[in-house]
Amino acid sequence: MASNTIGQVIRCKAAVAWEAGKPLVIEEVEVAPPQAMEVRLKILFTSLCHTDVYFWEAKGQTPLFPRIFGHEAGGIVESVGEGVTDLKPGDHVLPVFTGECKECRHCKSEESNMCDLLRINTDRGVMLNDGKSRFSINGQPIYHFVGTSTFSEYTVVHVGCVAKINPAAPLDKVCVLSCGISTGLGATLNVAKPGKGSTVAIFGLGAVGLAAAEGARIAGASRIIGVDLNSKRFNEAKKFGVTEFVNPKDHDKPVQEVIAEMTGGGVDRSVECTGSINAMIAAYECVHDGWGVAVLFGVPNKDDAFKTHPVNVLNERTLKGTFFGNYKPRSDLPLVVEEYMNKELELEKFITHEVPFSEINKAFEHMLRGDGLRCVIRMDA
Amino acid sequence: MASNTIGQVIRCKAAVAWEAGKPLVIEEVEVAPPQAMEVRLKILFTSLCHTDVYFWEAKGQTPLFPRIFGHEAGGIVESVGEGVTDLKPGDHVLPVFTGECKECRHCKSEESNMCDLLRINTDRGVMLNDGKSRFSINGQPIYHFVGTSTFSEYTVVHVGCVAKINPAAPLDKVCVLSCGISTGLGATLNVAKPGKGSTVAIFGLGAVGLAAAEGARIAGASRIIGVDLNSKRFNEAKKFGVTEFVNPKDHDKPVQEVIAEMTGGGVDRSVECTGSINAMIAAYECVHDGWGVAVLFGVPNKDDAFKTHPVNVLNERTLKGTFFGNYKPRSDLPLVVEEYMNKELELEKFITHEVPFSEINKAFEHMLRGDGLRCVIRMDA
Repeated sequence: MASNTIGQVIRCKAAVAWEAGKPLVIEEVEVAPPQAMEVRLKILFTSLCHTDVYFWEAKGQTPLFPRIFGHEAGGIVESVGEGVTDLKPGDHVLPVFTGECKECRHCKSEESNMCDLLRINTDRGVMLNDGKSRFSINGQPIYHFVGTSTFSEYTVVHVGCVAKINPAAPLDKVCVLSCGISTGLGATLNVAKPGKGSTVAIFGLGAVGLAAAEGARIAGASRIIGVDLNSKRFNEAKKFGVTEFVNPKDHDKPVQEVIAEMTGGGVDRSVECTGSINAMIAAYECVHDGWGVAVLFGVPNKDDAFKTHPVNVLNERTLKGTFFGNYKPRSDLPLVVEEYMNKELELEKFITHEVPFSEINKAFEHMLRGDGLRCVIRMDA
Repeated sequence: MASNTIGQVIRCKAAVAWEAGKPLVIEEVEVAPPQAMEVRLKILFTSLCHTDVYFWEAKGQTPLFPRIFGHEAGGIVESVGEGVTDLKPGDHVLPVFTGECKECRHCKSEESNMCDLLRINTDRGVMLNDGKSRFSINGQPIYHFVGTSTFSEYTVVHVGCVAKINPAAPLDKVCVLSCGISTGLGATLNVAKPGKGSTVAIFGLGAVGLAAAEGARIAGASRIIGVDLNSKRFNEAKKFGVTEFVNPKDHDKPVQEVIAEMTGGGVDRSVECTGSINAMIAAYECVHDGWGVAVLFGVPNKDDAFKTHPVNVLNERTLKGTFFGNYKPRSDLPLVVEEYMNKELELEKFITHEVPFSEINKAFEHMLRGDGLRCVIRMDA
């Protein structure tokens, strides 16, 4: 990285989504220098997450195009804007789709990570500082995505959305901690908190659900029951500690009853990672009365209603929701990276594909086919 | 208490409910000696709780008559059955409608108080040991109520449903800890756990709701918002620490929105004590995202459904239910009595009426009129 880029517009390659659902196009874009409280990052590795695909398809939401997607990534600070003291050029970082301003009530609360200033905003395609984009092609602004836009060789991110990590950590592995893997892992470790020897049900065995299972494995759960409509996923899930499998389609009775029968009244903890409202309700109702805790974080449809008989609540079941696994991005992600470095957490098994940046559309194809878990995109290739 | 009653049938006065909704009749009943793991108590004071009235009215449930109601009380052990080692004649005790066997998974769990063996059973009118009643009139069995039946000078209770307390504690005061007051107090102190300086909403300002408010006061909450459809209750509620009042009928918008506006986004904790499904939903939705915890324990109608948009869950709100304030009756109630003895907890303000046993029906009249909080019935008068 030549130091002479500081303060200058950088011309580099980015994968631009010009229209909903159409293949991304690698374009030369101009990336403006970071403004106050912003940093410009050189992205080395990025991976594809369902949320990118969801907003790229733009089936439910207000479409915002042209846009540069991407939010799971690892990179290096190229330059910093005015007022940035926590980061300097050369720092190894993970950009995150949600932030930590360290000033608001949420950041000051030990319980919350839902920063008032930098909480995820999927509708905003511009930077907070001036309400404008830092990306352009021949003067035409290209919108940002969740403040990260990592499908670009360089991107500009608010300093509150950047976690500084151990420079020894391999960015092609830890980049997956920017979103999905931390979300699942934290849902179990930070929110469900299963005890050693406990029984845990995981609803949905995609990458994020398997990260939740990995959390249960790390916590020392003795039974990890995977629930998925696709029985083929069980085999892969065993690598993540899943010991038993239930496919709701194989049973005439509701899956919560099947699980209650398997476990003498219910599991100690459940984690729901599907976004299906029926899975959410089942995940809640399958925990044991007296002490069971259900944690939900799948993203539901707008019109869904979570519905249960209040007696399920009164019988001392706890319902919790989590966002990004309750991790505070700047404070906590560096520690998760250390867990990987200490070999407590395994990341390699989540990475099933790798493609060069020039073939980024193949990563979309893998995900749309439900093929594999994470596809890492190498920006230098 | 003459020691020569041990092992003998005792003839004494009891208030018998012969029919649903009809005034109780003071009758001479025979009380059989305690069997294995049972104790016979001389009741000195009992108070009337809504649950007695609810099952006496028998509007929703299977009616079971003739029956001796009563479950909030203080008394002294008269004799003990085979196998009872924890209690001896002369011990001061509170009988409780739910038990603690100390052997089951719930009793062994730190989180639960829902004992498998002795959990409340409102349909059973007999003792566990032999499936029979210990009460009779001329050979006709009179049913028990929730294992306590304290509207009798003597009653037989399973040892697991009896809390041994400090003999210096005045039974005419601490008798109210047998049910309602502990339920409300524990919902706040054991489950909602508000921090010092926090904001708490209490839904329903009857005796149990005011006990929940008392818990918030003891915990050091700085704002305690009382919610009730009866604005007259606010004045009384101030004695229990309630600082602000909201009557949902005074507002066009849902009460959860009113509370969110009053508190900059929601309260830190809410406790729901009404059993109204709308209050349950409002209590959940009025807690702050990120860290808010709602605790429900009002008893709903059979057909009610708790319904909320799942985004309320995902935004890191916690929903909890509690039964008897999560107190384990034998382990924890003696400590609550000590809190009263140490003047941390005030009980006198809950006791608004006192009647002699011969006028027990007046206690029902007070409650049906919504007049006062607790009416203590003196058994010796």
